[in-house]
Amino acid sequence: MLEELKKQVCDANLELVRKGVVIYTWGNVSGIDREKGLVVIKPSGVDYSGMTPDDMVVVELSTGKTAEGKWKPSSDTPTHLELYRRFEKIGGITHTHSVNAVSFAQAGTDIPALGTTHADYFWGAVPCTRELTEKEVTEAYEVNTGKVIIETVENRGYDPMAVPGIIVKNHGPFTWGKNAAESVYNAVVLETVSDMAFKTLMLNRDSSIKQYVLDKHYERKHGANAYYGQR
Amino acid sequence: MLEELKKQVCDANLELVRKGVVIYTWGNVSGIDREKGLVVIKPSGVDYSGMTPDDMVVVELSTGKTAEGKWKPSSDTPTHLELYRRFEKIGGITHTHSVNAVSFAQAGTDIPALGTTHADYFWGAVPCTRELTEKEVTEAYEVNTGKVIIETVENRGYDPMAVPGIIVKNHGPFTWGKNAAESVYNAVVLETVSDMAFKTLMLNRDSSIKQYVLDKHYERKHGANAYYGQR
Amino acid sequence: MLEELKKQVCDANLELVRKGVVIYTWGNVSGIDREKGLVVIKPSGVDYSGMTPDDMVVVELSTGKTAEGKWKPSSDTPTHLELYRRFEKIGGITHTHSVNAVSFAQAGTDIPALGTTHADYFWGAVPCTRELTEKEVTEAYEVNTGKVIIETVENRGYDPMAVPGIIVKNHGPFTWGKNAAESVYNAVVLETVSDMAFKTLMLNRDSSIKQYVLDKHYERKHGANAYYGQR
Amino acid sequence: MLEELKKQVCDANLELVRKGVVIYTWGNVSGIDREKGLVVIKPSGVDYSGMTPDDMVVVELSTGKTAEGKWKPSSDTPTHLELYRRFEKIGGITHTHSVNAVSFAQAGTDIPALGTTHADYFWGAVPCTRELTEKEVTEAYEVNTGKVIIETVENRGYDPMAVPGIIVKNHGPFTWGKNAAESVYNAVVLETVSDMAFKTLMLNRDSSIKQYVLDKHYERKHGANAYYGQR
Repeated sequence: MLEELKKQVCDANLELVRKGVVIYTWGNVSGIDREKGLVVIKPSGVDYSGMTPDDMVVVELSTGKTAEGKWKPSSDTPTHLELYRRFEKIGGITHTHSVNAVSFAQAGTDIPALGTTHADYFWGAVPCTRELTEKEVTEAYEVNTGKVIIETVENRGYDPMAVPGIIVKNHGPFTWGKNAAESVYNAVVLETVSDMAFKTLMLNRDSSIKQYVLDKHYERKHGANAYYGQR
Repeated sequence: MLEELKKQVCDANLELVRKGVVIYTWGNVSGIDREKGLVVIKPSGVDYSGMTPDDMVVVELSTGKTAEGKWKPSSDTPTHLELYRRFEKIGGITHTHSVNAVSFAQAGTDIPALGTTHADYFWGAVPCTRELTEKEVTEAYEVNTGKVIIETVENRGYDPMAVPGIIVKNHGPFTWGKNAAESVYNAVVLETVSDMAFKTLMLNRDSSIKQYVLDKHYERKHGANAYYGQR
Repeated sequence: MLEELKKQVCDANLELVRKGVVIYTWGNVSGIDREKGLVVIKPSGVDYSGMTPDDMVVVELSTGKTAEGKWKPSSDTPTHLELYRRFEKIGGITHTHSVNAVSFAQAGTDIPALGTTHADYFWGAVPCTRELTEKEVTEAYEVNTGKVIIETVENRGYDPMAVPGIIVKNHGPFTWGKNAAESVYNAVVLETVSDMAFKTLMLNRDSSIKQYVLDKHYERKHGANAYYGQR
Repeated sequence: MLEELKKQVCDANLELVRKGVVIYTWGNVSGIDREKGLVVIKPSGVDYSGMTPDDMVVVELSTGKTAEGKWKPSSDTPTHLELYRRFEKIGGITHTHSVNAVSFAQAGTDIPALGTTHADYFWGAVPCTRELTEKEVTEAYEVNTGKVIIETVENRGYDPMAVPGIIVKNHGPFTWGKNAAESVYNAVVLETVSDMAFKTLMLNRDSSIKQYVLDKHYERKHGANAYYGQR
């Protein structure tokens, strides 16, 4: 079932390794078939080497139950499902522990928009969530990780497609996109702009960018009158 | 038309990938045929993998109109054209979002000349432009990016061939040279000296170099009595 | 003798090179056969290229004497033996001079637990030992390195299997695990979390993580009710 | 002439590329035949790709004149010759612009001995020279670079074989050893310990190591009673 989507999601997971944003079994990518209400996701704790589409796990969006698969799904599956339920336009989600994005998550601060590289993909600071409470962690950690992401995106008044990523405090980045491949793309870009932001702040803690430059770059690529690329 | 130049410019674009200064579709390199008044440049938003000379776009220096090509030219083309019009000795231009140079651009500070590695290629600090005004951004962003580069080079009293690069505030580096290949070479060197300058400033914010050392290194490589290399 | 263990230990040593945590002859990995009371370890100062299981050295746990091998064992062998004697559950030990972990060792500070990446493997800060005294260094440097590791682990009240690594002041990391391969795995993870911790502290010296998040992540992977992976 | 030495020196130069401590035509390695009074060195400004022993240049130690070779020798040749003349035990010299060592050179500070990785190869801080005066730069830059290295080593009371490297202020590292290969080895180690020292100082500006640990590590590897390795 969902052979094409499994192939896409498997490919997207392997792309994490090729781009150097995961090691060992870290990270996970999922994709969704909105019509069927099914999510395809990486199995939990399985090594990337030799991973094939057959290893992907299919879970039901509504219940979280495994619909098909020889493995248990990623332990982060409940987080992915929360996001798919709330953000109806997203088609793929990526979670990594990439070093630079994690460093901002551990420092507990947003990844500020400081340049056009950032603005080309994220229309504003990539927010850092608040800490989960002890109750939230103990009762339903992965579900509540999803909820705090949604809470943060909505409190900021963000369109999730305009700022397609977030960092969870003390944890790491989640990114998303139209499909699995785009969510990985955004994960790699986020790691790169985190590297840039880190060094920028080391040079000058007061760095900033004018909103009109942010707007211009985002809009020349994603706005109604976008003129970047071959559209 | 301009088959040889297209080959050189395509090669120079691919060199950006090999040297690790771009990812995905980021960056662009152009080259000029001064006699014909034509510029060859990378297409906009096209991936490097599988790129061939045939993908290059030919635009007229005077009008910016596409003279030949199956793609739209890079969205940064108007910036390149401004530079070619004003700096008559340059034959190639490279723009990247390489991490270390971008970090200085985002911090809004020059890349200071702190050592002989820098001095071998850039005869003085690599300047950071001022911020564009909202009007400049809204009305003609890419043209005005070119104009602010020219303004900065001229305000510093720089010979563009002696300091063949600049960083645009909140954006990133533009480098140039005798031809496309040399502009890429300078982009890679600029990224490396930015890495050095970053770490140097972290160790000692008051680092500096004597002007006579700067002069010596630049001149032993580029001066009338240059003795570096096999000339 | 111990052909299978020699193969495992040789493989684990070569993995250090593949993961980029050692250069030249740096680092060493050992494994133990508890029943026979024999430890297999890398030879001293021998290059990794072309290393085979036959190059491994077998030493007696009780006496430290070489039981088999054409080379002298690693000069750090007495440290390994001390750890095997005291920490009865460990089956493999790795020592590297990986850059980020060494930087914390040289700075003389713990690698603090600041995120879930750390918590997935180390249930608390990875401690930095005290300095050895001149007497300890002069009289039996390698033995005393083992002793100060044990002293530190015990003073912290740590279960060595729950925090499977340490940094020796001014020296570098030692990690351990169920077997040689797991000790290498922990060395690579420690290097990665050191990189994250370094950048986190640069961004925010007051970074911290709640104990209940630390507990949750460690336990979802290693606790009695662990649900990460395919167990 | 000197075919074997040319092969060694060519190999050592290519090793710089393999180890990632040079790009383009940067850096140079030489080796000496003390009996014949001849030095073999890399040609000036020639790319590493395709370099063969035949490209090496032979110069006379006493006069600096080219004895054989189709290219001009490295522009840094006079520096190498100064060092060979004064430090009679050295058989090879390497100069690079490796990023971390250069950063300390540009900051104008020693690379302090902060750990055992450093102590295994350099018995004390790797010193940074004073600035050259304008006269020294103008009159005989490369010769005076050699002279200020010698002055610094001698002012520190160093045995050049016990601290086989230095950084020249605003310039970069020179390392040496028994032969060309060992000087490259020391260049790679110096770059690595510079990386460690940089991060250590970022974490803790007051980091230090006890002299008796420094002594112990250096002596267990290089002292009369050395027991590291297979000697």
